[in-house]
Amino acid sequence: MLFFTQCFGAVLDLIHLRFQHYKAKRVFSAAGQLVCVVNPTHSLKYAPTRCAAAQTSVEQGILPPCHHHEAVHDPQLVPCTCPLFSCPWKGHLEVVVSHLRQTHRINILQGAEIVFLATDMHLPAPTDWIIMHSCLGHQFLLVLRKQEKYEGHPQFFATMMLIGTPTQADNFTYRLELNRNQRRLKWEATPRSVLECVDSVISDGDCLVLNTSLAQLFSDNGSLAIGIAITTSKVHNAEAEM
Amino acid sequence: MLFFTQCFGAVLDLIHLRFQHYKAKRVFSAAGQLVCVVNPTHSLKYAPTRCAAAQTSVEQGILPPCHHHEAVHDPQLVPCTCPLFSCPWKGHLEVVVSHLRQTHRINILQGAEIVFLATDMHLPAPTDWIIMHSCLGHQFLLVLRKQEKYEGHPQFFATMMLIGTPTQADNFTYRLELNRNQRRLKWEATPRSVLECVDSVISDGDCLVLNTSLAQLFSDNGSLAIGIAITTSKVHNAEAEM
Repeated sequence: MLFFTQCFGAVLDLIHLRFQHYKAKRVFSAAGQLVCVVNPTHSLKYAPTRCAAAQTSVEQGILPPCHHHEAVHDPQLVPCTCPLFSCPWKGHLEVVVSHLRQTHRINILQGAEIVFLATDMHLPAPTDWIIMHSCLGHQFLLVLRKQEKYEGHPQFFATMMLIGTPTQADNFTYRLELNRNQRRLKWEATPRSVLECVDSVISDGDCLVLNTSLAQLFSDNGSLAIGIAITTSKVHNAEAEM
Repeated sequence: MLFFTQCFGAVLDLIHLRFQHYKAKRVFSAAGQLVCVVNPTHSLKYAPTRCAAAQTSVEQGILPPCHHHEAVHDPQLVPCTCPLFSCPWKGHLEVVVSHLRQTHRINILQGAEIVFLATDMHLPAPTDWIIMHSCLGHQFLLVLRKQEKYEGHPQFFATMMLIGTPTQADNFTYRLELNRNQRRLKWEATPRSVLECVDSVISDGDCLVLNTSLAQLFSDNGSLAIGIAITTSKVHNAEAEM
């Protein structure tokens, strides 16, 4: 009996996922878009005191300290860039992607435009939704984080980081798009380098920020579909020349 | 001496405004766009307790009470829709625009695409920046509000309301766009009707929401340029048909 109940539950889950996948595809209807269902992970290394300290230093005009860099002495070696765990790994930038895939089981997706479908948005903060995105010959890390910057008021922060140097990152523009209920929200920016630390990008608020009510308006049955596109930043260069 | 000091101050102000106008035009470079410098007004009727009550009822799934409708008995008469003042005026929807212009001195601008340049973003909350926008045969009210939903953490809320009925409002889509420092944020939605009360739209968070750090990133010398465009909502109708 238990076996049948479990099987029935699994089938229901599959139907539900398929339905969510269909709906996300319908919202972002461009041909060839890949929908990736991303499950949440409760962030284990997140410490509110560290972020509060970072926030204070940002307000004072000082760059927030990034713990990633603390233990690195060889300038050729990069610390683990996984935002979820405090990981002692160090290695060259070229092998960060394989470390993230193998050790932290972060999925990687191919394609110029993908849909990131974050499930279980109701889970309490701190929670992270993470994938890697392979595009235009580079790998990017997409992080959606639910965090309480102000106690009792969780917000969602979404950003894209290039797994590469800041100079390489300047060549790209990423776009995050939410589209539901006759509302559309688009955020476009130059990705930061993973060497700059995702925690400081989020504490600076230099990313797509959603309060709970907006996140609910864009969510469907507890899942948030974010359309992602990466381009080379010709538009920005043209603007700078003007 | 005092006369010369004041004259010099006025000339400096004019040069500064001219420069801001030029910069706003450069950012939103489409031909024929009108830049409107909008000065802030400290909201006199804003009461945090009323908004807190509205927020609570939204969370409980009840529509927030809108004080505008309290004293209206004749269904043909509409209360004053000015978000700044508690005004006893009542009249037909057709004369709301002339009331707002004449009594509350709210400017009106013509054009499909305009740039709203809000000055003095640093002023403490509650502060409102308001203009009317005449476009596609209708008049819209654009409200940018600085408000402390959470004590000590001011946020900016921007929305557009049609000076017309909710049914008329459904025929339009408005877009608010911020563009600076290689970042772009776009919000698109169906305007609400002024009959629905701007306070409840803002307490629902169903509008463009900016926290202080994002507002600073998009501001230039204390002024925020918001590109505004209004279209008839063909895209949304096509989506609904799909």
